[in-house]
Amino acid sequence: VTVFSPLITLLTDFGNDDPFVAIMKGVVSRINPAARFIDLSHNVPPQDVFRGALILRSAAPYFPAGTIHLAVIDPGVGSSRRPLLIEAEGTSYIGPDNGVLSLALSDKKITRIIELRNQAYFLTPTSATFHGRDVFAPVAAALSLGVPAEEFGPTLADYAKLAWPQPVHGDGSVQGEIIYIDRFGNLVTSIAESELRTIAHKPLTISLRSYTLQGLHDNYSSGAGQDLIALINSWKLLEIARFCGSAQLHTGAQVGDKVRIGRSV
Amino acid sequence: VTVFSPLITLLTDFGNDDPFVAIMKGVVSRINPAARFIDLSHNVPPQDVFRGALILRSAAPYFPAGTIHLAVIDPGVGSSRRPLLIEAEGTSYIGPDNGVLSLALSDKKITRIIELRNQAYFLTPTSATFHGRDVFAPVAAALSLGVPAEEFGPTLADYAKLAWPQPVHGDGSVQGEIIYIDRFGNLVTSIAESELRTIAHKPLTISLRSYTLQGLHDNYSSGAGQDLIALINSWKLLEIARFCGSAQLHTGAQVGDKVRIGRSV
Amino acid sequence: VTVFSPLITLLTDFGNDDPFVAIMKGVVSRINPAARFIDLSHNVPPQDVFRGALILRSAAPYFPAGTIHLAVIDPGVGSSRRPLLIEAEGTSYIGPDNGVLSLALSDKKITRIIELRNQAYFLTPTSATFHGRDVFAPVAAALSLGVPAEEFGPTLADYAKLAWPQPVHGDGSVQGEIIYIDRFGNLVTSIAESELRTIAHKPLTISLRSYTLQGLHDNYSSGAGQDLIALINSWKLLEIARFCGSAQLHTGAQVGDKVRIGRSV
Repeated sequence: VTVFSPLITLLTDFGNDDPFVAIMKGVVSRINPAARFIDLSHNVPPQDVFRGALILRSAAPYFPAGTIHLAVIDPGVGSSRRPLLIEAEGTSYIGPDNGVLSLALSDKKITRIIELRNQAYFLTPTSATFHGRDVFAPVAAALSLGVPAEEFGPTLADYAKLAWPQPVHGDGSVQGEIIYIDRFGNLVTSIAESELRTIAHKPLTISLRSYTLQGLHDNYSSGAGQDLIALINSWKLLEIARFCGSAQLHTGAQVGDKVRIGRSV
Repeated sequence: VTVFSPLITLLTDFGNDDPFVAIMKGVVSRINPAARFIDLSHNVPPQDVFRGALILRSAAPYFPAGTIHLAVIDPGVGSSRRPLLIEAEGTSYIGPDNGVLSLALSDKKITRIIELRNQAYFLTPTSATFHGRDVFAPVAAALSLGVPAEEFGPTLADYAKLAWPQPVHGDGSVQGEIIYIDRFGNLVTSIAESELRTIAHKPLTISLRSYTLQGLHDNYSSGAGQDLIALINSWKLLEIARFCGSAQLHTGAQVGDKVRIGRSV
Repeated sequence: VTVFSPLITLLTDFGNDDPFVAIMKGVVSRINPAARFIDLSHNVPPQDVFRGALILRSAAPYFPAGTIHLAVIDPGVGSSRRPLLIEAEGTSYIGPDNGVLSLALSDKKITRIIELRNQAYFLTPTSATFHGRDVFAPVAAALSLGVPAEEFGPTLADYAKLAWPQPVHGDGSVQGEIIYIDRFGNLVTSIAESELRTIAHKPLTISLRSYTLQGLHDNYSSGAGQDLIALINSWKLLEIARFCGSAQLHTGAQVGDKVRIGRSV
């Protein structure tokens, strides 16, 4: 039986132009030459912790048990914000304690929260500006070699959590908001498929800015010829899309815009 | 003898911002922990099946026998368009039946065309919006583990093919068009090196919009000091370029623009 | 003991849209199926050899001994510029002889400089426009399999070097320049931490265009509320930054702009 080193995923706001991500991979590879990497995204807008948290939440469930997720969106690097390792259901999450790990963990059974304080596992000298390289990467590498979590520092009772924008129910309607816009210009809302069950009247009416849509589509191409369609996307969230086009360009919508689902008028 | 799991290449229009590509790699890794990935490109403009097909055609010949090429440019996802596995000369091509695989296969001996219909190999529930994750990735993973192609569904007689824009010959000249513009602004035409043999008179005269070029260069730097040069590029196609500059910016040319090669006047 | 194939890093100006990088990886994989890749960056602006050299200099020290660094920023491809393999302190550097390798090597003990001339290791036919594919990738692959460096061609006495923009000292001050701007808009200067020791008077005064900054910060977040801060960055260079913002957008600064460090006035 061949035993593989656990996968390490990387999620940052470092972009794909600078060598920062590669430097982290180099650091890991020096410690664990068998390390294997998968990039979640490095194009999170600078300091956009919420978007990073959403990406981690969307991607982590599809990775093998034992994967180490490394998320470095870290405007507070070098300050008092704590560096964390969280273990949940056999998977490890490493990153700053600013909420970037939290949306992925909200429905998980957490086994252990560790503050990364054991400098024996850091690169030295340890900079105050690049903990991705000096703290998070070497800890992920050591973890991937089998170093037990407790080695890295003391156990904590809690960690910073971001709030999911809770849809507001009332009078047979649900109001949520756009929380993510993808490359295609699809507008992803905070409204989960399960929320829509509370709305008895069909077809659903979906409102965004001055636009009103009727009913849900099964896929994108069934919306050919229509300006906009709504559907339940692959993250099981309500999404507003435009077939072979961009709902964002069509509507001018932005993250934070309200979306209302109610009865047909 | 160490046996490696076949390489899996990925080609999509998913971009590098969202986690969609990573999710596909996660799905594959859960099924085959030894899977190894090489990204062809994820920045194909949304729904640009032809450009994706050109990229696959250009890259596939350089990969080892046994490679699994996974191409997900799939505006018809969830509709009646068929998901395919095509085997040709020991290499596997997986993607929607919309032509994205076809330019890579046009000069290959095809062994087998399979419609991916066996849901036992799909992620369940299977979404209607992300077959890259739910259909193509798990099938590629199973294939990389040695599952025989016939397992995935029935054999088909044919598949969708894109037409290569055929150059028009006449009166000692050839007319083609720009089919691809690369990062450097190089203008790649539909005219293969072999087409130029039909033009006896030398030096060749190449016309694009209001520009006329004389003769072919061997490489880019030999065009230093010239506004534009023509050469046979690494894909063995006629290309119009500008040394240390962008022929696209210089000419304003677009994909689809006609290019005429004839005798010097 | 498992022996891993050496890591191969890739640095190019090919971008992430076209399949050029993937083609290089395919070529390597056909020769060495165990090859493992880490991308340093492919978004070096076209032909920007200096920026490529800076990226290689910044990243290479973090990689394991034995790594093969492949840098293809190569406007002179196909001309008389020589293709090189340089070995230094157990690590290999492959690329054109235009200086792209030089900043990484400036403080290294060089063991051997080889001109890649043995066509037995090239792809044939060898194009004059894509040596990344036809020369550099197959040589890197052969090297990763253990082919000795001398096999690839004759030994050279020297190679092309880029000059580091030397800071100018005088009258208790140091003048340098901006040499790199990263994704965050951080302005990286040519002034090393060690240069600042020559300035006795504290706090330091840093001047850029019409802006004047006082003193050095330890990290980014300690500059919250300030327009601009200066700090020693993770490359041990003086950097001008803006917390949760872009110093580039704030100042309009460009690579080449002068930065002066002197006594407080």
